[in-house]
Amino acid sequence: MQIHSSIADLRTALKGRGRVVFVPTMGNLHAGHISLMEQARAHGDTVVASIFVNRLQFGPNEDFDKYPRTFQADCDKLATAGVDVLFAPTEADLYPEPQEYVVEPPAIQHVLDGEFRPGHFRGVATVVLKLFNIVQPQAALFGKKDYQQLMVIRNMARQLALPIDIIGGETVRAADGLALSSRNGYLSEAERAEAPRLYRELNRIREAIRAGEADTVKLENAAIEALTAAGWQTDYVAVRQQLDLSMPKGVNAPLVALAASRLGNTRLIDNIEI
Amino acid sequence: MQIHSSIADLRTALKGRGRVVFVPTMGNLHAGHISLMEQARAHGDTVVASIFVNRLQFGPNEDFDKYPRTFQADCDKLATAGVDVLFAPTEADLYPEPQEYVVEPPAIQHVLDGEFRPGHFRGVATVVLKLFNIVQPQAALFGKKDYQQLMVIRNMARQLALPIDIIGGETVRAADGLALSSRNGYLSEAERAEAPRLYRELNRIREAIRAGEADTVKLENAAIEALTAAGWQTDYVAVRQQLDLSMPKGVNAPLVALAASRLGNTRLIDNIEI
Repeated sequence: MQIHSSIADLRTALKGRGRVVFVPTMGNLHAGHISLMEQARAHGDTVVASIFVNRLQFGPNEDFDKYPRTFQADCDKLATAGVDVLFAPTEADLYPEPQEYVVEPPAIQHVLDGEFRPGHFRGVATVVLKLFNIVQPQAALFGKKDYQQLMVIRNMARQLALPIDIIGGETVRAADGLALSSRNGYLSEAERAEAPRLYRELNRIREAIRAGEADTVKLENAAIEALTAAGWQTDYVAVRQQLDLSMPKGVNAPLVALAASRLGNTRLIDNIEI
Repeated sequence: MQIHSSIADLRTALKGRGRVVFVPTMGNLHAGHISLMEQARAHGDTVVASIFVNRLQFGPNEDFDKYPRTFQADCDKLATAGVDVLFAPTEADLYPEPQEYVVEPPAIQHVLDGEFRPGHFRGVATVVLKLFNIVQPQAALFGKKDYQQLMVIRNMARQLALPIDIIGGETVRAADGLALSSRNGYLSEAERAEAPRLYRELNRIREAIRAGEADTVKLENAAIEALTAAGWQTDYVAVRQQLDLSMPKGVNAPLVALAASRLGNTRLIDNIEI
């Protein structure tokens, strides 16, 4: 696996590489990321991953400085997964000057996770556009675990006419249903045993809608109550339209149920397409 | 000259064309535009022009509906100038849905022309990024006549890591110094005779600075007074730093003198690098 930090070196390395498939990450890789790398292989000739902890998408009270950096272990995992080229820029490579030109997403950036993380999706959209311009891939994969991020990127790509297929990678789960996440490592043993409830509640919503329940607000509230009773503090449980995460206009359009809830000090998110 | 309106057809037509040089326009072409097309030839193998009157960059009180559309005459001029491919999308091609993802430029968008045209440079940056993503050129030319636009695009390209050289094309002037512009056609005969004063005043500023005058505000005010005495209504005369149009930190850095002033109902802009 080649590793480049300079934009110019990366571009040279990618010349004549056929169809390039790109998987951006912030490192601290787990089996969910590695699954994306393996899925990427089916979509092109050259798989490019990136590792960059993007300051722009962290709020002032978020954990930019504490975000786990595990570069050597990440490299080993990516090489084993068959990644061809890793782009690992420093902050000076990607932001040699303060980033003043940004992509401003529409209302979707302010709902759900955006309500609790102001500016987060602007920072995500901006760095991803910049990485796209550097790597110039024909396809890019983003995990469905971060569903709102996937939709922001997919809509941005369509609206800005980027010549890139945006592909959603399926969420990888533990045997008990818990979605894999860097943050699962923060859970105590007791919290880890409790954590799959989030996915079970999302499943319950899906089954109810499939069985004909049309009152999605009632389902959301029931899930919040069940989580609260089990000691969770919930930011949101929401049934939304898949494409733009707007309020459902009916239960026949493609929907998604999303949730963010805290167990102790750890904030977990998950979602399920309906 | 090939003419395409569909994004997919254009991309197919540009495959294997070598180094592509792109000159976006809003049509209604004059000798200044044609000079850009001829300059473009020196920067690549294939010259692509576009004609698209971009609704996003017009304010609610501006002349989007009245903007002159002269498509057939424009095509003849571009073909004569040796343009290889013309991209002429309809609004449905470029904006099949309302444009919700935009590029937000920093403070430069709110000064000078931006003060008088709120949202204008956001609309310019957004459509140009979209056109870049469609055409995928290796270089693009923008006339220095619209100096603030050139700097917004150049800074956007650098900040978003676009793999595109942004080249400023020299302003083409009539024998008496008036910069060529679509709007010159609105001038009466008397106004046309008066119009070169704008360039003369900018020249006077340049000569004074070259001669050692450091008080740029005094020079700006003198120019505004001279224009007012001759019947002009001035929006601004300003000496600024070239790169970001911020206030000059001294007269030794690369500066530019810019002006916008109205003669009757016609608003003229011009500038001169120092």
